Amino acid sequence: GTVPAYARAAVLTGPKQVEIREFPLRAIGPDEILVKVEACGVCGTDVHCYNSDPFGLAPVVLGHEGTGVVIEVGKNIKMDSVGKPIVPGDRIVTSLMETSEACMIAKYNPLKANLCDDMRIYGLLPDEPDNHFNGYFGEYLIIRPGSSVFVVNDMSLELRTLIEPAAVGCHALERAKSCGATLNFRTRVIVQGCGPIGLMMLAVLRTYGINTLIAIDGNPGRLELARKMGADETLNYRDFAGIDELADAVNGMTKGVGAHFGFQVTGVPAAFSNLFKCIRRGGGICEVGHFVDGGECKINPHLDICRKEITVTGSWAYNSFEYPNAYHFLQRAERIGLPMSSLITHRFPLDQIEEAFATNIRQEGVKIMVEAGS
Amino acid sequence: GTVPAYARAAVLTGPKQVEIREFPLRAIGPDEILVKVEACGVCGTDVHCYNSDPFGLAPVVLGHEGTGVVIEVGKNIKMDSVGKPIVPGDRIVTSLMETSEACMIAKYNPLKANLCDDMRIYGLLPDEPDNHFNGYFGEYLIIRPGSSVFVVNDMSLELRTLIEPAAVGCHALERAKSCGATLNFRTRVIVQGCGPIGLMMLAVLRTYGINTLIAIDGNPGRLELARKMGADETLNYRDFAGIDELADAVNGMTKGVGAHFGFQVTGVPAAFSNLFKCIRRGGGICEVGHFVDGGECKINPHLDICRKEITVTGSWAYNSFEYPNAYHFLQRAERIGLPMSSLITHRFPLDQIEEAFATNIRQEGVKIMVEAGS
Amino acid sequence: GTVPAYARAAVLTGPKQVEIREFPLRAIGPDEILVKVEACGVCGTDVHCYNSDPFGLAPVVLGHEGTGVVIEVGKNIKMDSVGKPIVPGDRIVTSLMETSEACMIAKYNPLKANLCDDMRIYGLLPDEPDNHFNGYFGEYLIIRPGSSVFVVNDMSLELRTLIEPAAVGCHALERAKSCGATLNFRTRVIVQGCGPIGLMMLAVLRTYGINTLIAIDGNPGRLELARKMGADETLNYRDFAGIDELADAVNGMTKGVGAHFGFQVTGVPAAFSNLFKCIRRGGGICEVGHFVDGGECKINPHLDICRKEITVTGSWAYNSFEYPNAYHFLQRAERIGLPMSSLITHRFPLDQIEEAFATNIRQEGVKIMVEAGS
Amino acid sequence: GTVPAYARAAVLTGPKQVEIREFPLRAIGPDEILVKVEACGVCGTDVHCYNSDPFGLAPVVLGHEGTGVVIEVGKNIKMDSVGKPIVPGDRIVTSLMETSEACMIAKYNPLKANLCDDMRIYGLLPDEPDNHFNGYFGEYLIIRPGSSVFVVNDMSLELRTLIEPAAVGCHALERAKSCGATLNFRTRVIVQGCGPIGLMMLAVLRTYGINTLIAIDGNPGRLELARKMGADETLNYRDFAGIDELADAVNGMTKGVGAHFGFQVTGVPAAFSNLFKCIRRGGGICEVGHFVDGGECKINPHLDICRKEITVTGSWAYNSFEYPNAYHFLQRAERIGLPMSSLITHRFPLDQIEEAFATNIRQEGVKIMVEAGS
Ligand SMILES: [Zn+2]
Ligand SMILES: [Zn+2]
Ligand SMILES: [Zn+2]
Ligand SMILES: [Zn+2]
Ligand SMILES: [Zn+2]
Ligand SMILES: [Zn+2]
Ligand SMILES: [Zn+2]
Ligand SMILES: [Zn+2]
Repeated sequence: GTVPAYARAAVLTGPKQVEIREFPLRAIGPDEILVKVEACGVCGTDVHCYNSDPFGLAPVVLGHEGTGVVIEVGKNIKMDSVGKPIVPGDRIVTSLMETSEACMIAKYNPLKANLCDDMRIYGLLPDEPDNHFNGYFGEYLIIRPGSSVFVVNDMSLELRTLIEPAAVGCHALERAKSCGATLNFRTRVIVQGCGPIGLMMLAVLRTYGINTLIAIDGNPGRLELARKMGADETLNYRDFAGIDELADAVNGMTKGVGAHFGFQVTGVPAAFSNLFKCIRRGGGICEVGHFVDGGECKINPHLDICRKEITVTGSWAYNSFEYPNAYHFLQRAERIGLPMSSLITHRFPLDQIEEAFATNIRQEGVKIMVEAGS
Repeated sequence: GTVPAYARAAVLTGPKQVEIREFPLRAIGPDEILVKVEACGVCGTDVHCYNSDPFGLAPVVLGHEGTGVVIEVGKNIKMDSVGKPIVPGDRIVTSLMETSEACMIAKYNPLKANLCDDMRIYGLLPDEPDNHFNGYFGEYLIIRPGSSVFVVNDMSLELRTLIEPAAVGCHALERAKSCGATLNFRTRVIVQGCGPIGLMMLAVLRTYGINTLIAIDGNPGRLELARKMGADETLNYRDFAGIDELADAVNGMTKGVGAHFGFQVTGVPAAFSNLFKCIRRGGGICEVGHFVDGGECKINPHLDICRKEITVTGSWAYNSFEYPNAYHFLQRAERIGLPMSSLITHRFPLDQIEEAFATNIRQEGVKIMVEAGS
Repeated sequence: GTVPAYARAAVLTGPKQVEIREFPLRAIGPDEILVKVEACGVCGTDVHCYNSDPFGLAPVVLGHEGTGVVIEVGKNIKMDSVGKPIVPGDRIVTSLMETSEACMIAKYNPLKANLCDDMRIYGLLPDEPDNHFNGYFGEYLIIRPGSSVFVVNDMSLELRTLIEPAAVGCHALERAKSCGATLNFRTRVIVQGCGPIGLMMLAVLRTYGINTLIAIDGNPGRLELARKMGADETLNYRDFAGIDELADAVNGMTKGVGAHFGFQVTGVPAAFSNLFKCIRRGGGICEVGHFVDGGECKINPHLDICRKEITVTGSWAYNSFEYPNAYHFLQRAERIGLPMSSLITHRFPLDQIEEAFATNIRQEGVKIMVEAGS
Repeated sequence: GTVPAYARAAVLTGPKQVEIREFPLRAIGPDEILVKVEACGVCGTDVHCYNSDPFGLAPVVLGHEGTGVVIEVGKNIKMDSVGKPIVPGDRIVTSLMETSEACMIAKYNPLKANLCDDMRIYGLLPDEPDNHFNGYFGEYLIIRPGSSVFVVNDMSLELRTLIEPAAVGCHALERAKSCGATLNFRTRVIVQGCGPIGLMMLAVLRTYGINTLIAIDGNPGRLELARKMGADETLNYRDFAGIDELADAVNGMTKGVGAHFGFQVTGVPAAFSNLFKCIRRGGGICEVGHFVDGGECKINPHLDICRKEITVTGSWAYNSFEYPNAYHFLQRAERIGLPMSSLITHRFPLDQIEEAFATNIRQEGVKIMVEAGS
């Protein structure tokens, strides 16, 4: 593990512009950790940034679903965020950085750091003169003071890159639980949208013991994957003339009254409107964190919310303290036979990162992984 | 207490048509109770029915916010719905009737009888050949088998007629609590809409200990009443150029981040859309039961729900088992100095019931009471 | 399906006295159902009654973990308790009978019917002149008005007899959830006591997705079964010098701080005391329904409860509305590979019921099943 | 506001030994705040330390229920713990200091910092060579980095010294809510023990809207105060032959079934055992934080917990993020007419602190306040 003087990273310099650049690899401070990146999944957010840099981050090294091996540990650091010793050679993942003192939301709402004004994670940090290795789409990552980090040595490379999206799904389940949803073995649950997060959501619910899972999507291939991730029933909305027909089909699977709960994972506002028609009185909906503002939709507050006493909640990212839950979920999911690692359908080396993005944009496969190299 | 052979009731025979009719007063069965009506409040639902008979109930004797004195108790009946003895001379109120066996919602969801297909209450039951005294806008009421009934002798006439709307407000609070809302002394809460139910909602929240209550309405007189019912701050939305300015005003009262929770009691869909702008990240909204479908409105699922992790829930009517809670609320409210009885601003005898409706339609006063007479 | 004029049932006539008697099989009423019993599990409660008739029920036909085939349906009955049609040939199970009007606990506490003064189930009803077929240790069962009944045609005989004990385990999980226990994938949970209900509890928790399950018992054979039902770790308390050593072992499996939650299923008061030492600060304990009063034990309210903010709750039986949950649990458990049917280790025909009891008393096997019929 | 070179503090040097000593008043660092103490309440914990120094803290400057005026603010500090600007002249209170990195309980349990291994508050910190002004029983207090601090200018001196005990009561209410207790207007609640925290608990519950509060104590004077703090009914346990008679009296106030919930604030283990007999099936108990280990008591897990499905929880201290809740509670309590300030029954200057302790030990009055002086 000799550390080179220079290392490479994929820098997004503007919309659709990525360059592999070489930067000097600075010495770490006493509260920092140097990590050699192994691999990182491509997220919808990455592609969203790649397409249009909507947050104005460029230049930026993207990649937040990553993992790597510890090369050097600052002398003040003895353990990871849950108290495990951390030493060179350990395999790690990272979650949120500490919130700033100035944010009034996280202050005195200990469970809401994810809603902070300045939620920060590696892979979505702007480039700085002395901090280039800020994302997992590079050969190295420097973990700065005030970060969360987790030693996960006993997990395969594939599962480690899935911890971040697993945390998104696990957080959504916790959100549903926290808003009073009745979620037990008999609950009938819809997952609307079978992209990577929707598939993860199905696996989370299956692992949680839900016995009736209904997946909705417009893509037969994705619905096939949905079955592998635990969906008992699948509905291709293109097979129905409209939402009323689709709702009828759901009713046919739910004793004529609709599902108890629905997770909306499409990111499409009209899909949110439609989902209300498939949920029974007294039921609930969770709008799961997607990262793009898709605009408005129409709902009827009286018929959709009040008269049916529907509870709707949102789920945004996750908190650092939820990473251990995602880790245990992935272990459990594999143990009950869900093929989690198979969600990673494509792999590209770092210097083919633009091809990785292009594959994601073509909606080929499920998870695209970028490997930082030998 | 001799019972006459005939008695009168106000019968709605069609839109805007009310007749005072006389019916024979039949003998009660062994599981029934004969009640001499004392008074009954006029509800928005009554006026809604009066205007257009939207549920097709006519002919019908309206009046569900009523109370009266027990004249005769069927021989099988020993106690009221909470186990108190019930005898002639007792003052009573009624809540929901039992749900039908056929409804799949209430079945095995013991807390959701209010969402039943066929929720039934006295005052919204169709006239039947042998059952005319079905609402409190008459001189008598016959309580049939399968009803809930509560002896409330130690309460003034005024408070007794307020138990039903109080139950609506108390149910909304329970709904908010059940969907994970943080409601403690420091919570900052908005009540949007200061009609009778909005004012009741303020009193409920004040009695519950909420220390910062913000009332929003467009009517200065109602905002004045809102202060009496506990509002610490009032906002007349007509004073602001639009929702952004109104939201700024709310932020100025809530440390710049918005209220923790809002109860939406206007029945106006656009008001529902707007309320999201006044609620902080991690907060919640309850759409409280009004009885008219006001149509659709627009929301942004990503910005309003997901990104802010807002929880929205609906509140519809109440359950019978919540009546004792409403009763204790009214007692407590008066004891902390809220002038609950003053909500009843007008009184009319039964044969002036159309004037009572007209007063409600003109939005004069708060609660209009119809007194069945000596 | 011709119905005989007479049929047999095993009647407990006093402590340790069981007789197979023949009774006339009366015609059913319009709200009743005639069931030909197939099989019924032996419960600890049955053996407890057999030994000493502690509730003074004799003469009584025991057997509450039973199932059978519908022979005749009263003309007023169209569907089962969740709205499925019910017809001759259907396979059914039963749960609680309706509570009496006089009980003040169930009244207006819709979720607490299980705590009623007079909770009644088939198999624990006294013999009456016209009602002999009151338990599943007979050839027939007559389901009377006011009962719950569930059509479960798509389930094996073995699983059907396990629904009742499964409902006990599922109810305990719901109790734990309802008292604020954090139960997610990462939660570390102890099940103390690996008799039939303890093993069921392990299966419930495993199916629910708990990733770290620790089973404690004093019997190596039972701990072996615990592993099959999902325990990741087993501890034989006889291997430790005392509770402090046992607690140390638990700490070694739980990052040095103790388990998040413990289900106490031994029925032994001293075990309840001990369990506190194995639970981390902020954790919880559920004392699961066993049916014998084992006496008192000592706890330290300051050290065990207050200083650690431990939450303790009790779980007693189940409610009828929880039967569907137990049904879906059993399906799910088998699908993730738990060998639920293997819990039934012995079978005896009805006329060898005393041998069935004796086998249970010798603590051989797990579940003993009595088969009623040809 | 010139700062003297030396100032005085009351130093506990060993059991029953207090000396007023003078220390040099060191310059504060850039993350520190210098506070001139105004006053501080005497807590049971202080007296406990005074009597026997059970935690081995001596030498120590006690006093944690204090308040004072800001003299100097370190240059890095711009705002208090909830984001209010903090400047010289502000009136402040303090809550918990940050937990240490090494504690595995607070780590990733954001709501449980109060259960930390090393929970630290001013007034219970050991004396250090350069840190003498560590408690409110002195003329000055230096607030160090990593502390919580709240500007509460709009509150009287008396209410400010009550924020700490109010936080204990508010935390206990939140604990009860978090363990699933049904706490609404109709809930019947017992407060057992009417010392300072018990009286505060009554005020918290009254402010929260509970309509039936039953206070139990053995001291008629305290029961008189209990009525002033909101108790509707009082029971002197000395008037009853034993727990069965006392439970009968409670039943007589609770429809024959017992109270829904009880807060146990006596610190006496036998009282904890007894309280179970006064609680209805399905109800709950909270053992509120007292600071002395009173030893063991007996309970019957089957009869007390399992068969009745009682939920028991503990409440220990509070978290910093709960201080705003306590602040709003005190405001609300006064506004509904509870004479909170009257809880302060005695005042002593700093140099009579031993007389303050002696008054507390004689159980005279309720809250004894020590004033640091002009
Ligand atoms: Zn992502
Ligand atoms: Zn509505
Ligand atoms: Zn109404
Ligand atoms: Zn979104
Ligand atoms: Zn049993
Ligand atoms: Zn204690
Ligand atoms: Zn104290
Ligand atoms: Zn028990």
